[in-house]
Amino acid sequence: MLGAISHQGLQTLRKTCLGYNLEAMLRNLDGILQDECQINKGRPVLIAVSGGPDSLCIADFMYLKGYPIVIAHFDHQLRQDSAADAAFVRNFAYERGIQFKLGEGDVKTRIKQTSESIEEAARNARYLYLFDAAEEIGAQAIVVGHTANDQVETFLMHLLRGSGLDGLGGMPYRWLPNAWHNAIPLVRPLLGVWREEITEYCRERDLRAVVDSTNQDSAYFRNRIRLELVPYLETFNPAARKLIWQTAQVLLGDSDLITGMVEDAWMKCLLATGEDYIAINAPIAKELPLGMQRQIIRKAIDQLRPGLRDVTFEAVNHAVDQLQSSKPYAEVDLISGLKLISEPGKLWVAGWETELPIGDWPQVLQDRALLETGGEVTLGSGWQISANKIAEGDLPPLSLDMQDDNQVWLDLERIDQPLVVRPRKDGDRFKPFGMEGHSQKLSDFMINQKIPRRARNRWPLVCSGDTIVWVPGYRPAHSFELTQTTKEAVALTLRRIDEHNL
Amino acid sequence: MLGAISHQGLQTLRKTCLGYNLEAMLRNLDGILQDECQINKGRPVLIAVSGGPDSLCIADFMYLKGYPIVIAHFDHQLRQDSAADAAFVRNFAYERGIQFKLGEGDVKTRIKQTSESIEEAARNARYLYLFDAAEEIGAQAIVVGHTANDQVETFLMHLLRGSGLDGLGGMPYRWLPNAWHNAIPLVRPLLGVWREEITEYCRERDLRAVVDSTNQDSAYFRNRIRLELVPYLETFNPAARKLIWQTAQVLLGDSDLITGMVEDAWMKCLLATGEDYIAINAPIAKELPLGMQRQIIRKAIDQLRPGLRDVTFEAVNHAVDQLQSSKPYAEVDLISGLKLISEPGKLWVAGWETELPIGDWPQVLQDRALLETGGEVTLGSGWQISANKIAEGDLPPLSLDMQDDNQVWLDLERIDQPLVVRPRKDGDRFKPFGMEGHSQKLSDFMINQKIPRRARNRWPLVCSGDTIVWVPGYRPAHSFELTQTTKEAVALTLRRIDEHNL
Repeated sequence: MLGAISHQGLQTLRKTCLGYNLEAMLRNLDGILQDECQINKGRPVLIAVSGGPDSLCIADFMYLKGYPIVIAHFDHQLRQDSAADAAFVRNFAYERGIQFKLGEGDVKTRIKQTSESIEEAARNARYLYLFDAAEEIGAQAIVVGHTANDQVETFLMHLLRGSGLDGLGGMPYRWLPNAWHNAIPLVRPLLGVWREEITEYCRERDLRAVVDSTNQDSAYFRNRIRLELVPYLETFNPAARKLIWQTAQVLLGDSDLITGMVEDAWMKCLLATGEDYIAINAPIAKELPLGMQRQIIRKAIDQLRPGLRDVTFEAVNHAVDQLQSSKPYAEVDLISGLKLISEPGKLWVAGWETELPIGDWPQVLQDRALLETGGEVTLGSGWQISANKIAEGDLPPLSLDMQDDNQVWLDLERIDQPLVVRPRKDGDRFKPFGMEGHSQKLSDFMINQKIPRRARNRWPLVCSGDTIVWVPGYRPAHSFELTQTTKEAVALTLRRIDEHNL
Repeated sequence: MLGAISHQGLQTLRKTCLGYNLEAMLRNLDGILQDECQINKGRPVLIAVSGGPDSLCIADFMYLKGYPIVIAHFDHQLRQDSAADAAFVRNFAYERGIQFKLGEGDVKTRIKQTSESIEEAARNARYLYLFDAAEEIGAQAIVVGHTANDQVETFLMHLLRGSGLDGLGGMPYRWLPNAWHNAIPLVRPLLGVWREEITEYCRERDLRAVVDSTNQDSAYFRNRIRLELVPYLETFNPAARKLIWQTAQVLLGDSDLITGMVEDAWMKCLLATGEDYIAINAPIAKELPLGMQRQIIRKAIDQLRPGLRDVTFEAVNHAVDQLQSSKPYAEVDLISGLKLISEPGKLWVAGWETELPIGDWPQVLQDRALLETGGEVTLGSGWQISANKIAEGDLPPLSLDMQDDNQVWLDLERIDQPLVVRPRKDGDRFKPFGMEGHSQKLSDFMINQKIPRRARNRWPLVCSGDTIVWVPGYRPAHSFELTQTTKEAVALTLRRIDEHNL
């Protein structure tokens, strides 16, 4: 299809569809610098100049307009000719009397030390340098040369790699990259300018840019997007580029809107947050629209794994399913060393190895504590178990519902005193009151009763000798209950003494 | 690139990347029908069956599962062999004892009568029939056979034609298309099913679908997307199709979120709405985030021109610029016969020919009314001008600020009685009190004073003979003012008698 249009014809078509025009572009650009990028002439501006046409164009333009610019070049030292590029940019600055700063980075060592790809490592090393340099000179902003083409290519890359609104929303003109610096913004005045306009500008101004040989290498994904996909899409609609650019702009605006909403919903859903964990209020989160549930999960992941890319649709949807699920207890993997843990009223997002707070549950602190009749045992989180002797005349009526989970009565004659409070151990079995047949494994009882996994190991067990007579908070054991012949009883009570001792 | 992978290899790759699997698909599909589409077995379901594999697959599946289905086929009569397709579908239904309904439409005549494209006309004629048929049988829903491939293709079509979040957000499983019917939803159970799975299903079930010869015709934009673009994108990332499908899902959720927000913002911004016009509260709208301003403009356009496609980025941005502009009066074209009119505190979106409500302004109803001293003249919108004689002892002090725009005092000796109230006419001039030099054109005065254009023609003018002595609501004329020698004055008052008479 592309073959059917001459190169000249395509250029004309593009010019028509993109509506580009050097003069109009130059008229706009100063306005963009002031209004969108919020740059003034009062304080230094650091311009990152690679030596390519984009950065050269904006450096030259801002120089002509009298902005107090400082040029910074970062030599990634990845190519043989990289020092020549640095010299070229130095010379460009020198000829114009512009202050020049050079950064050098051993990107190769960085790749070995981190798990970053070559592009990521280069980018991170460069920005690390640029923000240092910007701070040093008291810059109001760092200017980078991203163009309208970059905007379109980034959109397509994100689309083909899978991305929601966050990724498809275009780069903004002005952006405070908190991960790098919380006061120096990164600004992109050329975001609305097409590469054709920059080429024309460079020709008019007789600027000879360095040629980055890797730009033509189709082995790089971005280069294939630029060299192959974008021209191919233009055979479907000559205005494709412009339409995609506009789409990215619109989605950026929509993404900003949603960010504000997410913030509100997040504050309502957040129950707790700590070292590598977040607890989400499941009943509230479940009632949010589906799109917002996805956003909440994304935000939780982002808080625990900042900057994690490739948060997949599957992972997020999986988490939403878990949130929606009626299972009160479940634990599944999420993404990037994170897991999801459902508990009644909560969805935890947490690192695999994270110790979640035990929270409100009673936990036995000692390995073995004696519970004297008339005495008590102190548990964790402000809980306490007490044992009180009840004389015959004060016995509760037998018809009394024994299922009050925090207070039970046992026949004193049937138990060995003193009672023992201890955590579980292998082989523990339990036969709850009211259950027919054999006893069951204590672990099965705990699963059935939905005692949270991480609270099971230190859940207090009240024992007569080695026999469990009560799992506090649940029902007592069979065959220790009061009967017609009971003379004396012991009342066991689980209660919270200090609710604030959490 | 595509050539480097064998057909078999590509199929395997797709199977891996899309994760498709007939058995899993069938397991899911019934759940989708119940949960996502909210279909039950209690009431009839109308299935639109073209005779192609997609609609045949869902009809067969729902038949097997025991849903009370009725099959409807719409013969567009655009192809020679269309009657054969209708006969095929009738036979499919007959063999299974399923009720069959046939619709026929003269799409060609529809195209002549409307400005619709062939695809639009076919689609509109088909849905018109389907909703009629669905209502006739008391259907709970209309089932259509859109697949995961359709979802992806639609996304790409919208992207290449320019579209914001609305267009890129995927089709939903269940949708109440208010433009067609406010109670019968359109449901798409196959939205998560790939065409490969449908082909497999048809093979397993020995369903022989009719072949729509136009599906292979690259002259249709959608066919080129399907036959050329999608396979090409898969050479960039074999999972491209799935990722785009997921993106459409995510954007649909986000779009729903924004729709809710827009509704809230809209209620705050809407000042008035009427026959082909909407008034937006500009001061409120201006403070909204940019993305929301765009949404408000889109909503206004959608309300005035429902179903209008191709609401361009430029048109919307243009309107946002106008909203942001500090010009209190401006009138520009918008899109599709709509214009934008800025007035203080308002942005009107209105049809070119629309008479906007005059609203709160005083307007003279007669071409000439006498204003006797001691009398009054009734204006439109509940306004009134009165004239009262003030005796020498009651004259206001000369230092009194004469600029109370709703009450002025004139020297009775200098005016001809009775005063006349009339609308403007060609050649009117006016010299406001306090202005040096020559008089100015009344039209210039009105522009300077920002009297709204459409209120100017009938703005009341109080005249002495033919000389304008007061523009009510503004200042009086020079040389009629009170002086040291004034003996008697006339007080002219503009007031609103009945604020509810709007």
